[in-house]
Amino acid sequence: MIAGETSRAYEEVFTINYIAARSVGIGAYVNRLGQRIIQNRRAPILLTGAGALNKVLSREVYTSNLQLGGIQIMYPNGVSHLVAADDYRAIQQAMKWLQYVPKTIGSPLPILKNLDNPEREIGFVPVEGSHYDFREMLVGKYVENNDEKTYLSGFFDKDSFFETLGGWAKNIIVARARLGGIPMGVIAVDTKTYEQVIPADPADSNSRERVVQKSGQVWYPDSAFKTAQAINDFNKGEQLPLMIFANWRGFSGGQRDMFDEILKFGSYIVDALTQYKQPVFVYIPPHGELRGGAWVVVDPMINNEVMEMFADEKSKGGILEASGIVEIKYRKQEIVATIQRLDEEYIRLSRELGSPEISLQEKDQIKLKMEKRVERLLPIYTQVAECFADLHDTPGRMKAKGVITEIVSWKNARTYFYWRLRRKLVEFSLLNQLSDCVAQNKISVKRQILREKVINNEKLWNNDKEFLSWVESNSQTVQQSIANIRREKVKQDVACLCSENADAVLEGLLSYLEHNSVNEALKEKLRKLL
Amino acid sequence: MIAGETSRAYEEVFTINYIAARSVGIGAYVNRLGQRIIQNRRAPILLTGAGALNKVLSREVYTSNLQLGGIQIMYPNGVSHLVAADDYRAIQQAMKWLQYVPKTIGSPLPILKNLDNPEREIGFVPVEGSHYDFREMLVGKYVENNDEKTYLSGFFDKDSFFETLGGWAKNIIVARARLGGIPMGVIAVDTKTYEQVIPADPADSNSRERVVQKSGQVWYPDSAFKTAQAINDFNKGEQLPLMIFANWRGFSGGQRDMFDEILKFGSYIVDALTQYKQPVFVYIPPHGELRGGAWVVVDPMINNEVMEMFADEKSKGGILEASGIVEIKYRKQEIVATIQRLDEEYIRLSRELGSPEISLQEKDQIKLKMEKRVERLLPIYTQVAECFADLHDTPGRMKAKGVITEIVSWKNARTYFYWRLRRKLVEFSLLNQLSDCVAQNKISVKRQILREKVINNEKLWNNDKEFLSWVESNSQTVQQSIANIRREKVKQDVACLCSENADAVLEGLLSYLEHNSVNEALKEKLRKLL
Repeated sequence: MIAGETSRAYEEVFTINYIAARSVGIGAYVNRLGQRIIQNRRAPILLTGAGALNKVLSREVYTSNLQLGGIQIMYPNGVSHLVAADDYRAIQQAMKWLQYVPKTIGSPLPILKNLDNPEREIGFVPVEGSHYDFREMLVGKYVENNDEKTYLSGFFDKDSFFETLGGWAKNIIVARARLGGIPMGVIAVDTKTYEQVIPADPADSNSRERVVQKSGQVWYPDSAFKTAQAINDFNKGEQLPLMIFANWRGFSGGQRDMFDEILKFGSYIVDALTQYKQPVFVYIPPHGELRGGAWVVVDPMINNEVMEMFADEKSKGGILEASGIVEIKYRKQEIVATIQRLDEEYIRLSRELGSPEISLQEKDQIKLKMEKRVERLLPIYTQVAECFADLHDTPGRMKAKGVITEIVSWKNARTYFYWRLRRKLVEFSLLNQLSDCVAQNKISVKRQILREKVINNEKLWNNDKEFLSWVESNSQTVQQSIANIRREKVKQDVACLCSENADAVLEGLLSYLEHNSVNEALKEKLRKLL
Repeated sequence: MIAGETSRAYEEVFTINYIAARSVGIGAYVNRLGQRIIQNRRAPILLTGAGALNKVLSREVYTSNLQLGGIQIMYPNGVSHLVAADDYRAIQQAMKWLQYVPKTIGSPLPILKNLDNPEREIGFVPVEGSHYDFREMLVGKYVENNDEKTYLSGFFDKDSFFETLGGWAKNIIVARARLGGIPMGVIAVDTKTYEQVIPADPADSNSRERVVQKSGQVWYPDSAFKTAQAINDFNKGEQLPLMIFANWRGFSGGQRDMFDEILKFGSYIVDALTQYKQPVFVYIPPHGELRGGAWVVVDPMINNEVMEMFADEKSKGGILEASGIVEIKYRKQEIVATIQRLDEEYIRLSRELGSPEISLQEKDQIKLKMEKRVERLLPIYTQVAECFADLHDTPGRMKAKGVITEIVSWKNARTYFYWRLRRKLVEFSLLNQLSDCVAQNKISVKRQILREKVINNEKLWNNDKEFLSWVESNSQTVQQSIANIRREKVKQDVACLCSENADAVLEGLLSYLEHNSVNEALKEKLRKLL
């Protein structure tokens, strides 16, 4: 019963588990069913104890329970979100986590004021090709300059970054952070290659420790799973708006990863985004790129009721990388045709070849020259073609094609997303007030009502700051409009109930009227109809 | 957009995908998001083609696309539910699958009449310790006897068995089958040990093919995932009642499986059962057993609105196996104490030892004798203790403790579950008619209303056949009761709407009355109140 209830609880409220001592069997399952786990580094998570396993295996394979379910197993495989050295630190971490979570389901987000100026520029600007930790872009970085330390600020508020699942699938960074005091879920990409260590199996004498190289900017089975897990954690219980810093060249599609069910775990990302209930911003950062399968699983059309996509001026996006698209759409023979059409030297040789005055031997020589010319020009023309194809992948084209909402330059991204987020939060809170007003509670329908019947001004609707200030200073008008819409809905509901069972409606009304009074004018109208 | 919609579609309707030729990138993802896949054995499922991968790896690693995503990869890892030799056979399989699925969501199950007598005994009775394929228990078996073939019938209707996911985690059998013509989802356990082959990775010259032994009756990460996948497939879109033949000694808890995230996949079983909407019967078959963690993830309390558990007379169930419980609850020192209390020889020796007449040397000899006596008796007493502990795990005790609904002997199981299933289907269809009548549409609340206000007879409620015949011959009474309950609900809704906005209710009523007439007596009452 506890297992079933915990499974339901994770869907509905904020759940967190601290493994203080030992968690065994169904105890371990209850913890996993609650998903968010902080594990004491001296506390194992077990299904069967080492002693019992040794008995089954008839030899002394395991020396301790920690060997089976200690943090060296449970942190790298993403069962434990955090590890703690002792109870005090574990409770500290749990308290910190709770600071990002609304008081109850449906409560407003816990916003802290005056942490860090939301309208400042971002100090840390990445240089193309240089090596940096993406966390520095998010939280800033201290740089030493002639023995002086300067702080280059990052995207989020200073010191507001709280990372979880740090031991698992390290290509993906998962954290909670604040933007102008507002808590957000964060998913970002670590571009470095990392070495995953798969421990040897003590029960199998043939097994050895394996080290697997995992490239940055590529989704593997584990990192896709981690991405989906994070989206679900943010969405369920935590109710956080989500910021995805998208920088993926695709999914790893080698035989090993195909066998390791990458299709299942990649699909989880789509499943998780489909269910998202809060605003989601997908942003391609400077020098970041988003391609093919990776683009598709984070495209706003997955769940366009809540998702929006943005890109920095220096980002790239498209199905294939430029070299790939040239290989398919502008093959060698087409490049050769271009050379024949444009190269003056080639055209001259070709004209010479056509002349009736030359001998057969001269013809052969000219043909050889022409071939050599093509050979020499081919790499140059290919480069030009790739450069041309690359132009398609710029933010300007993405915006023109309508696949992103806006080009947002990194320096000003903090300010832009702060206002966008504040606006979205007000918009979503108004949408929530319309919840009973539409069939199936569909956000898109509610948004249309809000836009056309409550705000009713396209200029306001399309400008975040103006939208915010208008809603703030016209709260009475807004509330009146919403009340009118609800009133219409009640009328419709009654009409609907009447056509189902009018007698029952009258009876319900009667029992109400016996103890309450209503509007005289309406009574009068009703009297006439009776 | 297609990805997002396919993810939603799997949750809401029956989805099936046939990989006829080649499924690449997002195409592959859309197929996986629709979950049920039939793969043509010449058609690969890919993320990146072999050519492009070779280019990335700068050497000729892969020779074909089939090597990456052919059936030898996608069938053993459970991405493909079925494989087909050609288009014709694939369509045949899809058609067969569709025969088990309701026409539309919410439609009644497609029941076939007169397939196989539902009230016959089951012909195939397993002998303890003998080797048999559990499929034989489900579908029957031909036995040769003096050159004559006899058919021993199984649990389900003859020739109605349709297995899927057969290449993946072979300890678990997943199928659709019919019981007296009614389609059901089936999950059963293959008790044989099987060898899982993990192919070598062509991209890693150090890797070798690995063969892993997987015991029967134990859940591993892959077989737990398969179990959950099957439950979800049956529940979502297929809307099938579910029969689980439970025979698990537990989850594999060795270091390798702990690292391979068995806790996550085991939890999936609980998550999936929590969401189940149709009747679920869990049945421990003859010579089957259910222990510890395995019991907990299929216990009816996970979702007691739809789940029930049953056991054959010759089955066993409990937290630990008898030897395990003795080790914890009746340790060596307690067994020794029992010997000291009961063994006449030991008591005699002990009395001798207490005698004041014997010398120190004699004492030592007696002590030695006593020790030897204990040593000799220990294994016998331990066996007796285990035998005693085993008595706790019998179906009689399970029933007395209320952890199973009924003891159902294998021979008559077909008849019993046929009537139980028919009764449950009628009960669920009545519950569906009460859907608008309770807050949050909770089955348990609706069942209480059905039991107390519609059936209102405990004897009828507790007897499947009587329940069925009474409901059938009193359909008018039943419909009248349900209509009354709905009427009460409409009255409550109106009262509720009135307290929200009485004016709007009156307006709604007005617009209805302008075009329709209602009961005169009620009108009169209303006139008085106005």
